[in-house]
Amino acid sequence: MTTNTWLDLPADHPFGIDNLPYGVFSPAGGARRVGVRIGDRVLDAGAVAAIGRAVGVGDGPDLATAWQTPSLNAFLELGRDAWSVARAWLIEILTDQVHRAGVEPHLHELADVSLHLPIDVADYVDFYASEQHATNVGSIFRPDSAALTPNWKHLPIGYHGRAGTVVVSGTEITRPVGQRKTPKDSEPVFGPSIRLDIEAELGFIVGGRTEIGSRVSVDEADDHLFGVALFNDWSARDIQAWEYVPLGPFLGKSFASSLSAWITPLEALEHTKVDLPGQDPQPLPYLRGERPYGLNLHLEVAINGTTVSRPPYCGMYWSPTQMLAHLTVNGASLRSGDLFASGTVSGDEPGQRGSLLELTWSGKTPITLADGTTRSFLQDGDTVTITGYAAGRDGGRLALGEVSGTILAAH
Amino acid sequence: MTTNTWLDLPADHPFGIDNLPYGVFSPAGGARRVGVRIGDRVLDAGAVAAIGRAVGVGDGPDLATAWQTPSLNAFLELGRDAWSVARAWLIEILTDQVHRAGVEPHLHELADVSLHLPIDVADYVDFYASEQHATNVGSIFRPDSAALTPNWKHLPIGYHGRAGTVVVSGTEITRPVGQRKTPKDSEPVFGPSIRLDIEAELGFIVGGRTEIGSRVSVDEADDHLFGVALFNDWSARDIQAWEYVPLGPFLGKSFASSLSAWITPLEALEHTKVDLPGQDPQPLPYLRGERPYGLNLHLEVAINGTTVSRPPYCGMYWSPTQMLAHLTVNGASLRSGDLFASGTVSGDEPGQRGSLLELTWSGKTPITLADGTTRSFLQDGDTVTITGYAAGRDGGRLALGEVSGTILAAH
Repeated sequence: MTTNTWLDLPADHPFGIDNLPYGVFSPAGGARRVGVRIGDRVLDAGAVAAIGRAVGVGDGPDLATAWQTPSLNAFLELGRDAWSVARAWLIEILTDQVHRAGVEPHLHELADVSLHLPIDVADYVDFYASEQHATNVGSIFRPDSAALTPNWKHLPIGYHGRAGTVVVSGTEITRPVGQRKTPKDSEPVFGPSIRLDIEAELGFIVGGRTEIGSRVSVDEADDHLFGVALFNDWSARDIQAWEYVPLGPFLGKSFASSLSAWITPLEALEHTKVDLPGQDPQPLPYLRGERPYGLNLHLEVAINGTTVSRPPYCGMYWSPTQMLAHLTVNGASLRSGDLFASGTVSGDEPGQRGSLLELTWSGKTPITLADGTTRSFLQDGDTVTITGYAAGRDGGRLALGEVSGTILAAH
Repeated sequence: MTTNTWLDLPADHPFGIDNLPYGVFSPAGGARRVGVRIGDRVLDAGAVAAIGRAVGVGDGPDLATAWQTPSLNAFLELGRDAWSVARAWLIEILTDQVHRAGVEPHLHELADVSLHLPIDVADYVDFYASEQHATNVGSIFRPDSAALTPNWKHLPIGYHGRAGTVVVSGTEITRPVGQRKTPKDSEPVFGPSIRLDIEAELGFIVGGRTEIGSRVSVDEADDHLFGVALFNDWSARDIQAWEYVPLGPFLGKSFASSLSAWITPLEALEHTKVDLPGQDPQPLPYLRGERPYGLNLHLEVAINGTTVSRPPYCGMYWSPTQMLAHLTVNGASLRSGDLFASGTVSGDEPGQRGSLLELTWSGKTPITLADGTTRSFLQDGDTVTITGYAAGRDGGRLALGEVSGTILAAH
């Protein structure tokens, strides 16, 4: 199926013609605008669309206008049909030689541009969709209760996080300060978090708008699911443990959450859709749908270059379409730029856990990095990089890019 | 101290010259813009500012530009000094006869305009700052545990809510649908909420912007506290009770939260600042400050015209400045348009409770309305109106406006 691009790319390049993720970039001295990654280059897609209004003439979506803005939100607002038109057009202009002369001047070297947060985050919700993760965390945080709360298999548990502190990959993360109190402390202690952690997650980018009071069904959810990103939900476990009862995580999470610069359209990931691992008990009808799918995606977590975990997304209990249906079942509306994340992705094996809390079992079994040092939680100066990929349609890998961040000392 | 306005207003009018709340309005057929309420009229403040650039000349803030936008966010972004300049200028043009001829054409009758959501809500956080409310809810939801969780007196507990479903007063509220499961049910049940409730709260509107990684101290918080609004955090208690462990309220709250159309600047409420009722144990130093204050404001909750509660704000345990300092202590940044709410305001007396959950003690003691009907929770067609006021500086009352909503049947 794969067509060849006229760019000089190996057929199995992880950012080849089958991928084409969207982001927001600025060339040196230039304004922010939407870009499409191909190989190690970034296409100024709006500039090309504007030249001949190649798309946008007549009744088509006005991609030139939507793309010449500093976030993906305007493009997201155009809706699913426009996303498909856009993708087909991008594939055409990057494969048909006839377009080469017109397009090539608008390709920038990735190394020459700056990447920015790709969306203006409207509302951000974090789910908790991995049974393995929820079981591990429950066992650690609530050792005297059942690991899974009674509601867990009946609904995709989630909560709202802070949209204003979602940052793009590469942004440095200042260690948060706050209150903590372990059972051993008689009073709460104030200071920099000493249990700073990661959560390797998949982020889903929502497009289109719904009215308050309406619902999006499981099967309609795809109309609003534009694409996926990698997501690191930095977590201060000590702050979280002291604050989170009864209203949930707040300052233990709200200092920063990192989003990859590249959003891979779900249209590029159709071939990765798989059945869910199985839901027992069967959820209520509003969570069923024709085929709530999983995604056969592979994450990797590296600390200072040492891979410490390989979480498999295919084992996630809840489908992204179920999460979106649940989010709206009470009539909550959607806006373009809404972001929801899967919750930590953890697999069955110890080496597939997506947080240090689980990997080190709350610090009891530290992990060892390639330089011989050990980690229970993150140290200042540590760089965490989460990468991800799917199998390519014709072999090789389709890359999900990366989300990376380095810890700065508290101040 | 009160100066007289040249408008034909009684000296103790609740929306007199000492009040001057801000909102966003549109005249018939006109665009949305910032308005200032005086009496039963709305001043098109931006139009007046634009005429002679009365403010905005030279180094002053460009109020004309900020006010001729469809939300208060641009004005909020100008910062505290600009808010003071603006207020002084508004008082001048509404009191000095010399301005009357120029200003009067830009006064609209309130009845002739539409009111809109006054801010583009950036992030919305709901606190839980009433000891009486937290004690009541804890007793009802967790009868086998201590009513207050161990952290409650050490930090202002809060969580993020859904910014996209904050609606302006007057917006109809569709009864939410979702899962519930009481201990009596063997399986979760799906359907319209049967325990739809209100929470009478005060909302605080944040202005200015801080960087991620920085903190706002208790004493600096006033620089970012623009004003107060009335707020109704509609709550589906049955949905909430089933979903909220372990990550907090989600669909039980996210279907809608109502904000009053008028934002009263804190500068108009200086005389209402009072000492907090007392904090024991003393909180950690970052929550102390010179004088974390309370506000001597009075709320009233009416259902279909029957006043069912009179919650006093002066008894709230945590100061708004402590809430803001806590929200940012981990380095979380602020944006203009951030909104945080106090949590339900409940006083010591049964008739001062700010939710039906408390007023009817989870439905055990229904309340009776003037028409003889009783309520445990809200019925379709019920209209809930929360009003508020402070004592005026020279007698009378300074009104906080109202937040109102009518329940529509689920669909």
